[in-house]
Amino acid sequence: MDLKVLRNLSYGVYLVTALDGMRPCGCVANSIMQISSRPATVAVSINKENYTHSLISRHGYFAVTLLAQDTDPGLIGTFGFQSARTANKFDGLDFTFEEGAPVPANVGCGWFSCQVTGSYDAGTHTVFFARVTDGAPRPGEPMTYSYYHKVIKGKSPKAAPTYQPEEEPAPAGKVWKCGICGYIYEGDTPFEQLPDSYTCPLCRQPKTVFKAE
Amino acid sequence: MDLKVLRNLSYGVYLVTALDGMRPCGCVANSIMQISSRPATVAVSINKENYTHSLISRHGYFAVTLLAQDTDPGLIGTFGFQSARTANKFDGLDFTFEEGAPVPANVGCGWFSCQVTGSYDAGTHTVFFARVTDGAPRPGEPMTYSYYHKVIKGKSPKAAPTYQPEEEPAPAGKVWKCGICGYIYEGDTPFEQLPDSYTCPLCRQPKTVFKAE
Repeated sequence: MDLKVLRNLSYGVYLVTALDGMRPCGCVANSIMQISSRPATVAVSINKENYTHSLISRHGYFAVTLLAQDTDPGLIGTFGFQSARTANKFDGLDFTFEEGAPVPANVGCGWFSCQVTGSYDAGTHTVFFARVTDGAPRPGEPMTYSYYHKVIKGKSPKAAPTYQPEEEPAPAGKVWKCGICGYIYEGDTPFEQLPDSYTCPLCRQPKTVFKAE
Repeated sequence: MDLKVLRNLSYGVYLVTALDGMRPCGCVANSIMQISSRPATVAVSINKENYTHSLISRHGYFAVTLLAQDTDPGLIGTFGFQSARTANKFDGLDFTFEEGAPVPANVGCGWFSCQVTGSYDAGTHTVFFARVTDGAPRPGEPMTYSYYHKVIKGKSPKAAPTYQPEEEPAPAGKVWKCGICGYIYEGDTPFEQLPDSYTCPLCRQPKTVFKAE
């Protein structure tokens, strides 16, 4: 059995957002799909260790923002590689309340709000089934998971259903890799000559968390 | 509520295949995703009207073939726009038996076999949860649902979870459209001058099923 075949499944990249009281929280997800059209129903797989998982389980409401190719990859760093237990991921982000969930304003190529109608225990993850209660497209090309990996050079958080260790062979020669999110620096300026103010474009952690491999 | 946002969700294009006794059957699906990695588990949404649905419900085994950009689109016509009740979709296709399900040989960028572990009733569709029992990647670029629509100019079968009527505005001027699968002829030769042997490249139906719009 060669599970690398599962890497050829196609996904988008999404923010799944929910409320902790009045505090907006959220995480990154890729395993989201429509499962019926009348009424519009979706399924979302969320790792049980994600703080957002506990919010959805408790309240039954969440929203999905569909990231676009031109979405700031820093949002993926903030929402995908930090925890709402220690970070306010919406800091500096405009958002609205939509049907019981926070929705970042002007981000990505659309959003929809959801009310949970059921769930399935998949071991490490829960699949939530939800009726779509509102939503609207925004202009933009959807960011696919493949685009995120190949063009943005992003990695999968360990909590992702699709996470597999050692996703790619190490490139030949010395490379500088973010110790938080795995981003590999590929700029023209030698990494050592970057200013101390350099931060990872994906997860916004400082230059000091990069390691040479 | 503008449900067009759901068209911005990203999917692949897959064959879901199962056995009817010793007869191999199958359909096209796009709503397939991995829901956990240890053990590898997937979710698949299948319309209850599909013959393949009854086979999976009855036996609990199926396989998924991941179509690639260079896969013959005619396979989508055969598997997506015909029914196993009246057609032998595997006619002319080599296949193997893998863990209780038929797998087309040398098609697409990989395959995996599945054993059902649970299901969720989503009204018109059932979501099957399944453990991946075997599988292997094959070389090739995955065909995304977006690629199928934009490059191959394919349509959604009415049984798809993602189906919405009137998916695209009609192009200006007279167009020739396949009455079975919705494929729009865009060749340089005027449609009327095509030989009588012309068949729809998507669903392989004869020239006579095309209608001018």
